[in-house]
Amino acid sequence: MTTFTLPVIADLNDAALTARLQHVLDHKTKPLGSLGQLEALALRIGQVLGTEAPVLQQPQMLVCAGDHGLAAKGVSAFPSDVTWQMVENFLAGGAAVSVLARQHGLGLTVVDCGVTKDIAPRDSAPGQPRLLLRKVASGTQDASAGPAMTEAQCQQALANGAEVVRNLPGNALLLGEMGIGNTSVASLLLARLGGLPLAECVGAGTGLDAAGIERKRAVLQQALDVNAQATTPLAAVAALGGFEVATLTGAVLQAAAERRVIVVDGFITSAAVLVASRIAPAVLQRCVFAHRSGERGHTLMLEQMQAEPLLELGLRLGEGSGAALAWPLLQSACAVLREMASFESAGVDGQVK
Amino acid sequence: MTTFTLPVIADLNDAALTARLQHVLDHKTKPLGSLGQLEALALRIGQVLGTEAPVLQQPQMLVCAGDHGLAAKGVSAFPSDVTWQMVENFLAGGAAVSVLARQHGLGLTVVDCGVTKDIAPRDSAPGQPRLLLRKVASGTQDASAGPAMTEAQCQQALANGAEVVRNLPGNALLLGEMGIGNTSVASLLLARLGGLPLAECVGAGTGLDAAGIERKRAVLQQALDVNAQATTPLAAVAALGGFEVATLTGAVLQAAAERRVIVVDGFITSAAVLVASRIAPAVLQRCVFAHRSGERGHTLMLEQMQAEPLLELGLRLGEGSGAALAWPLLQSACAVLREMASFESAGVDGQVK
Repeated sequence: MTTFTLPVIADLNDAALTARLQHVLDHKTKPLGSLGQLEALALRIGQVLGTEAPVLQQPQMLVCAGDHGLAAKGVSAFPSDVTWQMVENFLAGGAAVSVLARQHGLGLTVVDCGVTKDIAPRDSAPGQPRLLLRKVASGTQDASAGPAMTEAQCQQALANGAEVVRNLPGNALLLGEMGIGNTSVASLLLARLGGLPLAECVGAGTGLDAAGIERKRAVLQQALDVNAQATTPLAAVAALGGFEVATLTGAVLQAAAERRVIVVDGFITSAAVLVASRIAPAVLQRCVFAHRSGERGHTLMLEQMQAEPLLELGLRLGEGSGAALAWPLLQSACAVLREMASFESAGVDGQVK
Repeated sequence: MTTFTLPVIADLNDAALTARLQHVLDHKTKPLGSLGQLEALALRIGQVLGTEAPVLQQPQMLVCAGDHGLAAKGVSAFPSDVTWQMVENFLAGGAAVSVLARQHGLGLTVVDCGVTKDIAPRDSAPGQPRLLLRKVASGTQDASAGPAMTEAQCQQALANGAEVVRNLPGNALLLGEMGIGNTSVASLLLARLGGLPLAECVGAGTGLDAAGIERKRAVLQQALDVNAQATTPLAAVAALGGFEVATLTGAVLQAAAERRVIVVDGFITSAAVLVASRIAPAVLQRCVFAHRSGERGHTLMLEQMQAEPLLELGLRLGEGSGAALAWPLLQSACAVLREMASFESAGVDGQVK
């Protein structure tokens, strides 16, 4: 049995560096604080990378895919086959995350963490989307009837995520996912780890109508009831699923230990970060939350982590699409730190006293 | 006397094209509407460029600069000299807009529309920021004591803006500005053209404290009172200022006539678009509003134009910085239209009926 060893995730609080970063920002040729949230972003990236002149290198989009036993209970507007079909679409370059990763020069790695269908391994040319097979099992068990996975399977998925990240280049990791039924998993993890009423955590996912949402809520209540004992972060992800969420959790913990900048996408990847941050709170010091999803529950999820997302565009696609859309803002924040002139260097007068 | 001739700005409403664009978006491999505001953006760009496969080409950032007689009345936290100093900084590559234009491959043209100091003409290498001298006068008159400019000067500035755009390549124009005191001008235009109480239109600008804002408000009330007869859009911009706003207004009208995509930055460039749209409402069909500024009044300005901005990052720098930050979202919207697979082409199952 492969077990996951929690890596050391240091506290990044460095008051001296923070003061230096703030000094740099405050002396740039602009009114104090006038770049708003971009300045907070620059501070965050500078702290993660430990420098006043951060350079983001070889950013990697990691899309973890898996299927869910729960999906058979009609919790999604799409059939489970769409999971593997979309994995093929990611690799062929036609999905939103493929298009956006290409636009921004993001490496794209798709991981089969537990898709029901066996996806054929393949070689990919450098710079093309790449498939990794890290299948723990062919889909999770139905969480409304018992645990989604065994403890050993959960450990395996966590270890897989950490191993995948260890072998990725670069200093920034963007999180993506695919799995029909996984807004259900995220809702369950939010309700359980956040101690929130389930109804507030459940939304339309890919497009359920009101009756569909009610059916989904009832199924998810069963899942919470039958897994009532699963209250720790790891027990919760094992009991409620899924393989892609557990793999992402391992990836996040490893990326945090390596001081990579972690760009969080929407509701499902946020659930993985929620689990990881309940294990090691310092994970959140490394995270940039790309956007506030249109999926109900994501705002509550963000509140659980005191997260201020960059974008609010009503996205609810997942895949990592929101993380990719926000990526240029991270590059801008670094460029501002590195390239903008100071009042002194540009010979610009300061504010009238 | 150079007079400005309003170009023909056609109504772009094309129900057949809109339906085709919507059909393309709805058949992409994603849940219906799941790319949120990015889909509305794709529709808009497709309509402006008249195609379901839009390609943004040679985007141009146009930064118009001018000084304001009002500034002598202490309406800004910075001295007027900062206007020409920042123009030098734009050209030297050290300002926020320079850094962001470089990041995104935007052509950068800085126009002296009426800066008090004479800025030395210079050659610039291809791809480098470029200076155009279109100075109407050395700063406007003090609008709190009378009209900021003559009617002839206003016509000259409008004609200059149109001429500058006619000679720019590409099919997208991003708007930027520089001018110590020009949040005052934008507040005045908002109050006058929007029929709003002045106090709701006046904010901190580059960093006034509460007493400073009160002083600014009192000066601006004088400007409204002394120019009470200036109620049409063009009379208002002539009476209240400034040269960079009038030049931008001409630029917007010309860009609209040429069906360029117009990317609006913050409070001041929005004021130019407000003036232009009161002259020719179809201008707004070509506009993408990049962000909601942290400057008080911008939200009211956006409401006047029923505009939904893309970003809300608490920016209040101007220069075109917000337009540049939003630019990659426009490219993403086009890439989604052009490059994403359809359910049919990718062999992905649709939603369960």
